[in-house]
Amino acid sequence: MIDGVPPRLPLTEADIQPWLDARKPGQNRFTTQRQEADVVKILSGVFEGVTTGTSIGLLIENTDQRSKDYGNIKDTYRPGHADWVYEQKYGIRDYRGGGRSSARETAMRVAAGAVARAVLNALAPGVVIRGAMVQMGPHAIDPGRWDWDQRTENPFWCPDGESVKSWAEFLDGVRMAGSSTGGVVEVVASGVPVGLGAPVYDKLDADLAKAMMSINAVKGVEIGAGFLAAQLSGEDNADEMRMGNDGRVHFLSNNAGGILGGISTGQDIVLRMAVKPTSSILTPKKSIDRAGNEIEVSTKGRHDPCVAIRAVPVAEAMMAVTLADHLLRHRAQCGYEQTP
Amino acid sequence: MIDGVPPRLPLTEADIQPWLDARKPGQNRFTTQRQEADVVKILSGVFEGVTTGTSIGLLIENTDQRSKDYGNIKDTYRPGHADWVYEQKYGIRDYRGGGRSSARETAMRVAAGAVARAVLNALAPGVVIRGAMVQMGPHAIDPGRWDWDQRTENPFWCPDGESVKSWAEFLDGVRMAGSSTGGVVEVVASGVPVGLGAPVYDKLDADLAKAMMSINAVKGVEIGAGFLAAQLSGEDNADEMRMGNDGRVHFLSNNAGGILGGISTGQDIVLRMAVKPTSSILTPKKSIDRAGNEIEVSTKGRHDPCVAIRAVPVAEAMMAVTLADHLLRHRAQCGYEQTP
Amino acid sequence: MIDGVPPRLPLTEADIQPWLDARKPGQNRFTTQRQEADVVKILSGVFEGVTTGTSIGLLIENTDQRSKDYGNIKDTYRPGHADWVYEQKYGIRDYRGGGRSSARETAMRVAAGAVARAVLNALAPGVVIRGAMVQMGPHAIDPGRWDWDQRTENPFWCPDGESVKSWAEFLDGVRMAGSSTGGVVEVVASGVPVGLGAPVYDKLDADLAKAMMSINAVKGVEIGAGFLAAQLSGEDNADEMRMGNDGRVHFLSNNAGGILGGISTGQDIVLRMAVKPTSSILTPKKSIDRAGNEIEVSTKGRHDPCVAIRAVPVAEAMMAVTLADHLLRHRAQCGYEQTP
Amino acid sequence: MIDGVPPRLPLTEADIQPWLDARKPGQNRFTTQRQEADVVKILSGVFEGVTTGTSIGLLIENTDQRSKDYGNIKDTYRPGHADWVYEQKYGIRDYRGGGRSSARETAMRVAAGAVARAVLNALAPGVVIRGAMVQMGPHAIDPGRWDWDQRTENPFWCPDGESVKSWAEFLDGVRMAGSSTGGVVEVVASGVPVGLGAPVYDKLDADLAKAMMSINAVKGVEIGAGFLAAQLSGEDNADEMRMGNDGRVHFLSNNAGGILGGISTGQDIVLRMAVKPTSSILTPKKSIDRAGNEIEVSTKGRHDPCVAIRAVPVAEAMMAVTLADHLLRHRAQCGYEQTP
Repeated sequence: MIDGVPPRLPLTEADIQPWLDARKPGQNRFTTQRQEADVVKILSGVFEGVTTGTSIGLLIENTDQRSKDYGNIKDTYRPGHADWVYEQKYGIRDYRGGGRSSARETAMRVAAGAVARAVLNALAPGVVIRGAMVQMGPHAIDPGRWDWDQRTENPFWCPDGESVKSWAEFLDGVRMAGSSTGGVVEVVASGVPVGLGAPVYDKLDADLAKAMMSINAVKGVEIGAGFLAAQLSGEDNADEMRMGNDGRVHFLSNNAGGILGGISTGQDIVLRMAVKPTSSILTPKKSIDRAGNEIEVSTKGRHDPCVAIRAVPVAEAMMAVTLADHLLRHRAQCGYEQTP
Repeated sequence: MIDGVPPRLPLTEADIQPWLDARKPGQNRFTTQRQEADVVKILSGVFEGVTTGTSIGLLIENTDQRSKDYGNIKDTYRPGHADWVYEQKYGIRDYRGGGRSSARETAMRVAAGAVARAVLNALAPGVVIRGAMVQMGPHAIDPGRWDWDQRTENPFWCPDGESVKSWAEFLDGVRMAGSSTGGVVEVVASGVPVGLGAPVYDKLDADLAKAMMSINAVKGVEIGAGFLAAQLSGEDNADEMRMGNDGRVHFLSNNAGGILGGISTGQDIVLRMAVKPTSSILTPKKSIDRAGNEIEVSTKGRHDPCVAIRAVPVAEAMMAVTLADHLLRHRAQCGYEQTP
Repeated sequence: MIDGVPPRLPLTEADIQPWLDARKPGQNRFTTQRQEADVVKILSGVFEGVTTGTSIGLLIENTDQRSKDYGNIKDTYRPGHADWVYEQKYGIRDYRGGGRSSARETAMRVAAGAVARAVLNALAPGVVIRGAMVQMGPHAIDPGRWDWDQRTENPFWCPDGESVKSWAEFLDGVRMAGSSTGGVVEVVASGVPVGLGAPVYDKLDADLAKAMMSINAVKGVEIGAGFLAAQLSGEDNADEMRMGNDGRVHFLSNNAGGILGGISTGQDIVLRMAVKPTSSILTPKKSIDRAGNEIEVSTKGRHDPCVAIRAVPVAEAMMAVTLADHLLRHRAQCGYEQTP
Repeated sequence: MIDGVPPRLPLTEADIQPWLDARKPGQNRFTTQRQEADVVKILSGVFEGVTTGTSIGLLIENTDQRSKDYGNIKDTYRPGHADWVYEQKYGIRDYRGGGRSSARETAMRVAAGAVARAVLNALAPGVVIRGAMVQMGPHAIDPGRWDWDQRTENPFWCPDGESVKSWAEFLDGVRMAGSSTGGVVEVVASGVPVGLGAPVYDKLDADLAKAMMSINAVKGVEIGAGFLAAQLSGEDNADEMRMGNDGRVHFLSNNAGGILGGISTGQDIVLRMAVKPTSSILTPKKSIDRAGNEIEVSTKGRHDPCVAIRAVPVAEAMMAVTLADHLLRHRAQCGYEQTP
């Protein structure tokens, strides 16, 4: 359910589906072979192809949920998975794939992101949000070879064409070993208006950190220079300012990652997040079962060798949702008007 | 203002003041020489030394705010500071030290943290929250020498006694050059009950990420293995589980940093955050003024050479606030009772 | 979507459906003849017949929405209806019966109420929530003849058996004239624990007032003595207190309607709400159309002659939702335990 | 604390104080003789006479709180007062006048209302909010004699000059008997833009009902025809529409009280609320004490014989706050621009 969407924005299932398709598993050998149609249905809030201003309801049904794939985890806890804490917190756990801790939950985030993009398209049409995978396991790209056009030419959202082949070999090895690997995803939002955010409680960077950390398997978030900023001096970190020929302020660097004091500067918002390797692996690991017996657990289901790949469209969606939300809040308080 | 605090908890100004004193500037040569008394006054919600269950109002007044220190920044924008975006967003800016983007704002976070500790003391008395500085500029501690007792023996909250001398020399150099440096702060919460958090929207790690990223100058947050997890295999990252002699589940490692699926596991919650160097430095940097002229800006006011030091008690406070909030929410939904 | 429901509560569609059936139209000649199956489907949050603690999704599909019934209002505004303000606010209006201003929207409130009752059953099993219609048009019941057993014996939820026949005659006249009438609904919640509510912002009575006023067609809400209290002296209004033989405090009257200072007293919560007559009537009324022409509008669709009848289960549901919410909040702050 | 106020609005203590003075007790013999200065101090969010867009903090200190006036209620529960439920809920009670259930709490509502008026003045300058007392005890005004100019000419906010003398006599009797009486307050907001509100959860009328019911001693709220609407037929209740000579839609009546489907129509918003008599009276009433003894309680402190009088500026303030909030929300979603 999405509340507060402005009225009269063009929106149909066809505007949402492509983003879901980008996240969809089973499209190549590098993602889980589970086949989910991930077809979205708009239940409410849209009339004759445009939003009505009332709550938008979206529904994505599970279609390929094989119970037998999960029978073996019914009474056991996978190390590194939420199984055990769910049972500790709630005293019950829906162990099937549709449970709330499944990465499948991110489908709805992507759908919501598509609606958020419709909001941004209408109110801030210059905004472009693009994610890329910049590190797979220990293998980082060379930022000097960054080429946005590359990222849709390979199955990894990799912007460095030269890294693709070695990543493929690395991931084939991981996959065939029944193992998994982590990765780092970078999301860049360009064309964001100056002024989104708030000074204390709902800083734009704070809300982005929450949005990204809420994605399954994410363990770290950094903005701009991020952890590197800890090593810098004030002289090196500060982004100097100059007047551009267009009469607007330009920054000479972007260590801030487009956000100062919790508020967008108009520069690119640059954010990276660390994705851990999935805990569903073939190698037996020490664990316990519901009866408290010490056991060994390995997972034979169809899982992603590198969930960071499919986290790219999810991260883009969470960026879109957070920006759209802050854009509307900014309009509430400060009366934002779209710059022509 | 703090709402929802349980009634009948012991709370006086004397319970809050020591935490404020720990954050207070001017206590040694390594922090700003501004002298703020930082005296907290309880305005409401406490009666005869215990909380009443109604809203708790706290007040800390500014006492050492010298206008002349800020006169020179009235019409100029400091690079790396929120000056310019505030003016862009709001069309106005309170340039004095009490403005919302001042690190002074964190005093109230520390006061709120003390109230949160009172909540934790009552409902989960085993919780211990401790922060430490683990990196100053490029100089990281040796984790193998970690000793909690050390951190209160030096002006840096440094848990590695052997790093203190070199840090002091490094920071003296930074300070005398009118420069600044960043740092990394680690916060550890021990004794946290299992089950705090929620599966999707308000995951404990997501709320912690927001809490920490909302602190001034923080540019990155990671939990457990954090960005390192991106490099790990599933085998290396998963924390194996065994039954302890006490009949309770034990984990053999803590790459998760105490949180799985957005819910606390009962292990230590381990979080690190990157703090950028303050933008108030002596070296002239390129900027613009309100009239749009290109200028050079240097800051002669009394500022912190390494704001990461004073961020340690702030990070502890935000951890306490987030945990207390989730503990109450957990009690609402699941009926938490304190383990004897 | 319902968040925060405690885990392990028994809940199936069969627990929800009877409440929906009680609200369902077309069951006798006194309600709209539209035939809605109002079948509820649980989409998430329930596993093997009990709640899992994660978000509960419910879906009720529209099945009997005849577009032709609404064609005639597509370009006209019905006086007293939300048509015109929707178009003014949003610049667009979904004129079909499923639009957000349709009384059909209350079905989901009733479904949510059934979930709230499951929460109350588990945590405060003594709570009984019952609504009744106490006035139809100008015809009020005689409170002296109040008999709860009567209210399910007639199509009006009328607790005064002697009023039923005259109400039926009155409403037949209204219905055959293509007219409509208002009514007053009273909801009583018995067995509510002492202490639900909050002192200032989220007083229990304030939240109940919002809950009830948010129901379509409601124009007034009063609690306890309500508007009559304005006429009373302090002596007559104050509910005196005495110790009961059971060692508990008893009140000698209930002008407060079970709420003092925003907090439940343990007495019956007594609330009344005024329901206006539906604006869909046969008599032509002056209005305008989308082009700004002055027209006359009459409604030939299948509508309720007295929507107050079907508002009874809706009011019960909103009472249940509000009480369950406050019970969980009370448990968060004060550690409520069910009295055996 | 008030968040989200637009920047650059003129606001000083002088803009707030007059509204507080209107609520202030002790101005004539008809209100409590307690002398509260009710001086407001702006702590933050205002700079050089205009709002900065950051949180506005307001402080009103208690100055005339005589502990001895409350000593006699320390261990006893006044019938009709929140004493007993506070103690039941929280296990503790601040029995002094500054406690949260004191009508003194409404001072801050009035201060917030002044800030809300600054918002409305800037964004919807045509809005005029005026409250009046329309019934004192059993004595209602004659609506036919309504004259807004009268209400500031008497100590009762009474718009019917001919009722003033009889009200004064009646209230003198009440006061000298140490008794109290209830009343009805009407608030009218004129010039409200069309389109404020939302269709389901945050209907404007629902939020107004919550706002008013949250005021101390209020037991009922009605909008437009209110409870009378229950008696009307659809023909009589529907407000017909016609095109005005100014090319805008006009309604021929206002039974809706300016709100349809939860959204403002642009007509006057008309709201009435019932205020109960204060429970602090001289006549001994049956009660209990903290030890469970049955006692009789009478209140000798300085209290209002008719709290409804001082509820008038409070009701105006809550109307202003609710309208300002919805205006900003409307601007967020629909891009409201002030009509020239």
